[in-house]
Amino acid sequence: MNRRIRVGIAGYGNLGKGVQQAINQNPDMELVAIFTRRDPEELAKETGTTVERLDNAGQYINRIDVMILCGGSATDLPDQTPQLVKLFNTVDSFDTHAKIPEFYEKVNAAAVEGGKVGIISTGWDPGLFSMNRLLMQAVLPQGKEYTFWGTGVSQGHSDAIRRVTGVKAGVQYTVPVQEVIERIRSGETPELPTREKHRRNCFVVAEEGADQEAIRSTITRMPDYFADYDTTVTFITEEELAREHSGMPHGGFVIRSGVTGNGSKQIAEFGLKLDSNPEFTASVLIAYARAASRLSVEGVAGAKTVFDIPLGYLSPKSPEELRRELL
Amino acid sequence: MNRRIRVGIAGYGNLGKGVQQAINQNPDMELVAIFTRRDPEELAKETGTTVERLDNAGQYINRIDVMILCGGSATDLPDQTPQLVKLFNTVDSFDTHAKIPEFYEKVNAAAVEGGKVGIISTGWDPGLFSMNRLLMQAVLPQGKEYTFWGTGVSQGHSDAIRRVTGVKAGVQYTVPVQEVIERIRSGETPELPTREKHRRNCFVVAEEGADQEAIRSTITRMPDYFADYDTTVTFITEEELAREHSGMPHGGFVIRSGVTGNGSKQIAEFGLKLDSNPEFTASVLIAYARAASRLSVEGVAGAKTVFDIPLGYLSPKSPEELRRELL
Repeated sequence: MNRRIRVGIAGYGNLGKGVQQAINQNPDMELVAIFTRRDPEELAKETGTTVERLDNAGQYINRIDVMILCGGSATDLPDQTPQLVKLFNTVDSFDTHAKIPEFYEKVNAAAVEGGKVGIISTGWDPGLFSMNRLLMQAVLPQGKEYTFWGTGVSQGHSDAIRRVTGVKAGVQYTVPVQEVIERIRSGETPELPTREKHRRNCFVVAEEGADQEAIRSTITRMPDYFADYDTTVTFITEEELAREHSGMPHGGFVIRSGVTGNGSKQIAEFGLKLDSNPEFTASVLIAYARAASRLSVEGVAGAKTVFDIPLGYLSPKSPEELRRELL
Repeated sequence: MNRRIRVGIAGYGNLGKGVQQAINQNPDMELVAIFTRRDPEELAKETGTTVERLDNAGQYINRIDVMILCGGSATDLPDQTPQLVKLFNTVDSFDTHAKIPEFYEKVNAAAVEGGKVGIISTGWDPGLFSMNRLLMQAVLPQGKEYTFWGTGVSQGHSDAIRRVTGVKAGVQYTVPVQEVIERIRSGETPELPTREKHRRNCFVVAEEGADQEAIRSTITRMPDYFADYDTTVTFITEEELAREHSGMPHGGFVIRSGVTGNGSKQIAEFGLKLDSNPEFTASVLIAYARAASRLSVEGVAGAKTVFDIPLGYLSPKSPEELRRELL
C-alpha cells in the first residue's frame, strides 16, 4: 500500500465524531489531528487523539493531506472552507442547496489561489442523492423525478416545536408517505408538492400542568412548518424521549419514472435507510477525502463537486481490481 | 447549443433499435447512419434512415463522433470494438463479466493507437449496478452487498428450455426472492448463494401430444440451469406466449448493508424496474456516448469504464446548471 492519507478534522460535533470513527474503518487513512474552537486539552481527553486550536491549523500545512470540514452550513462552512482550502485540500458537506453556486465560486477562487482541491457539498443530499438525480435524468431524459426524505429527524422542525409555550422538549420526524411512493413505483407520475410526499410526526414532552390540547393545536396550525402537512403530535415522558428518540436515523429515496421507445415505463430508484445520519455522512466525506488526495497528487486545483469526480477515485482499490471485481 | 453529437449505430437488433429511439429523446444528438451486416437497402426501408454495410464504416471517419456498438458480447464485440475504436470513439455494452479485464486491455491498445475513446461495458449490469457496487463499498467498507436480478427474461435459460424434447417454445423468468430482499432491507446480512436469491419461472408451449410431466421433470432436474433453484413450469398456449410473454422486462437491485461507528446499520439500495431491457440499456449507451464525445474533444484516448468518467459528462447540462439544479 502507498503511504496512508493523512486526515485532519475541523470541528468535532456529531459529524466530526463520525469522521473519526470512519477513519478507523479505512486502513488507507490516518487521523493526524482534530481542530476545534473548544478547549483542546479537554477534547484531547475525550477523543484520545491530538487536538489543536482551529486557529493553529496553519502549522499543519505539510502534515495533512486532506482537511475534512465538519462545521455547519449556516455559519461555519461559508467562512471556513474558503479559508482552509488555501492551505489544505478540503472536503465539506455544505448543504444549503440554494447557496451552492455562490459557495462554489468562493471556494473555487480560494482553492485555485492555494493550489488545492476543495470538494464541496458531499454527503447524501447534497451528495449521493444529487448523483442519482443527475444519472437518472441523463439516462431517462423523458420522465419525472421525486426525492423523498425520511424517516428522519428534522432539526429545524424540532426547534420549532421546542419554541411552543408549554413544551419542555420534543423531536420531529419527517416521514415519507408510503402510499405515494408505491404509486410512483407502480408507474404513476403524479404532481406532488413536498407536503403531499411527507408527513410530520412530533413527539413532545409537555411542561407539568401545560395544556396539551393547546400545544397540539399550536403545533399543527403553525404556518410553513406544520399547517400544510398531515401532522401528528404524541405526548411522551422525558424518559421515553431519552430512551426512544435520541438516535439520529434518516434516509430517503430518489425515484425517477421515465419512458423510452413507444411508451415503455422505466423506473430507477436509489434509497438509504440510515441508523445514524452523521455517521453515514461522515463515511461519504471519507470516500471523497480519498478522491481529494488523489486529485491533488495529479496536480488538480479548484473546487469540485460529486459531479466532477470519477467514481473510481472513491475506492481504495486499483482500476484493475475495480474492473475485475466490481464491473 | 453546440453542434450536435453525430452518432453511428453498429448492429441493428433490439439494442440498436433502442439506441435509434433514444437518440430521438436527446436533442443534442443526431443519427448519421446505421451499419449492418444485413442487406442495407432492406434495413433502410425498415428504419427510415441511412444504412450502410458495416464493412464500409471507414468511409464515415470524419462524419461520426461516436459509434455505438450494439452487437452481442459472445461473438460480435470482442472483434468489433477493437476494430472500430481505431476509427471512431465507441461505446459498447460488453457484458461477459469474467472477460472484461482482457477485453479492456485489447480495446485500450486499439483506442490509444487510433487516438480515440472507447467506453466499454456500459448498460445496467455491467454499468449502473457496477457504479452502485463501487459507490456503496467505498462509502460503507464494513458491510455486505447483494445483487439481485429480475424479474426478467434470461436468454440462456430460455434456450435451455427450448432444447427439451417435446417443447415447442418457452421463456424463462428469473425472479428475485422477495422474502430474502425484505430480510436484507430490515438489516439481516445472510450468506446467500445465487440460487437462494432467485426463483426460476418457466412458461412452456408443449408440442401436441407431448408428455407434460416428463417435460416438467426434465426442466426442473436440469443441472446448472434449474436443479438447484426453486423452479416452476407452467404450460401455456402459443397464443398466450405471444400475447403475455413477448416483452423484454427486466430489472434488479444492488443492496449494501453496512455498519458504521458503534454498530449503526446503514442500508443503501439501487433498483431498476424496466419494461424494456434493451431500450433502457440503449438509453445508458446514449448518455455514455455524450461522455465519449466530450472526452475525445478534451484529447483523451484509450479504453474507459463507468468508473473512470465523472457523472457530469453524462448530462447535456453545463456544470453551472448541474450545480444549481441538481446538487
